[in-house]
Amino acid sequence: MAGIPVPLERVIKELTKLPGIGEKTATRLAFHLTRSQRNDVEGLANALLALREELYTCSICCALAGGDPCEMCSDPRRSDEVVCVVEEAADLAAVERSGGFRGRYHVLQGTLAPLDGVGPDDLRITELMRRIGEGKIRELIVATNPTAEGEATALYLAKLAKPLGVTVSRIAHGLPMGGDVEYADLATLGKALEGRRQM
Amino acid sequence: MAGIPVPLERVIKELTKLPGIGEKTATRLAFHLTRSQRNDVEGLANALLALREELYTCSICCALAGGDPCEMCSDPRRSDEVVCVVEEAADLAAVERSGGFRGRYHVLQGTLAPLDGVGPDDLRITELMRRIGEGKIRELIVATNPTAEGEATALYLAKLAKPLGVTVSRIAHGLPMGGDVEYADLATLGKALEGRRQM
Repeated sequence: MAGIPVPLERVIKELTKLPGIGEKTATRLAFHLTRSQRNDVEGLANALLALREELYTCSICCALAGGDPCEMCSDPRRSDEVVCVVEEAADLAAVERSGGFRGRYHVLQGTLAPLDGVGPDDLRITELMRRIGEGKIRELIVATNPTAEGEATALYLAKLAKPLGVTVSRIAHGLPMGGDVEYADLATLGKALEGRRQM
Repeated sequence: MAGIPVPLERVIKELTKLPGIGEKTATRLAFHLTRSQRNDVEGLANALLALREELYTCSICCALAGGDPCEMCSDPRRSDEVVCVVEEAADLAAVERSGGFRGRYHVLQGTLAPLDGVGPDDLRITELMRRIGEGKIRELIVATNPTAEGEATALYLAKLAKPLGVTVSRIAHGLPMGGDVEYADLATLGKALEGRRQM
């Protein structure tokens, strides 16, 4: 690139691989890095390198973890009876941030997407069934995304788990808090009416 | 952070140090990195580490460079007679991208800002005067930002360079291309009128 030395160009090229970061943002970030403390740049680089060395997949819940089993699976204060099933590790973090859940988790690492060639064997469903087989789990809360794939995955899990005597529930769909009925899309409003609760 | 393993938390913390990247964006980027190819993550980390090892400050123009002297200073096709003075290396890249300049550059690495304790000795002004002293330079184009500090720096440089027989010019200020007279701020419109050119 014109007027940009090669080492900087390399950083810009690597940064543009990140989602939502175009060439302009990447250039701004790269120039910022040339002005920041050596410690900060090395801190980021080392944190990135450590990511692959120190990050495990929990052998119980298949979540990303700093150790195996993960913090959530090894916490004795959490209930073994309820398991929240999510698509990705990022979803787990979101549910955990809400503070409304004190059971265990299971990360599917994707959703059923037959058109993209993703079948049940590509997800961590076998691991979930094994956990159910251990007999402690009484309820699965399926918190996959409210998309076609997420819904299909939820239905598939319900069909597998119900015959094993496990209650399967789906997180509620409806208007987001602070939302506006006037501007809600039809599908959301439909779900909100369908899922109404007596006051 | 809740539900986020320590190695990931570390990457998030380092990313939030970058300008314009808050916790939410950093979290999204970090989770993306856990899903990307090992090569990509290492590529970024290594590019960052190389930044400090392979990036030089050109001993002639004080720009960031992949070697010393930089590409611009060692290009024999560029004119030695005109020097474009900019605040930062990023400004140099912007002027270079415009494609409208084939002379040399000089990077001040800042602007005069007496209130922040930045005086002439903190900028690369001595280096510029030494270059003028070599006798090849006929014109300085001062492309500092159109801010109070940038203007003050431009005036200061003009005062130093003019007595040495060098023409000092300032880049034009006015309406940006594609701009709108109706919505232009007063200062810009004032400069645009003041700097009008006969057609």
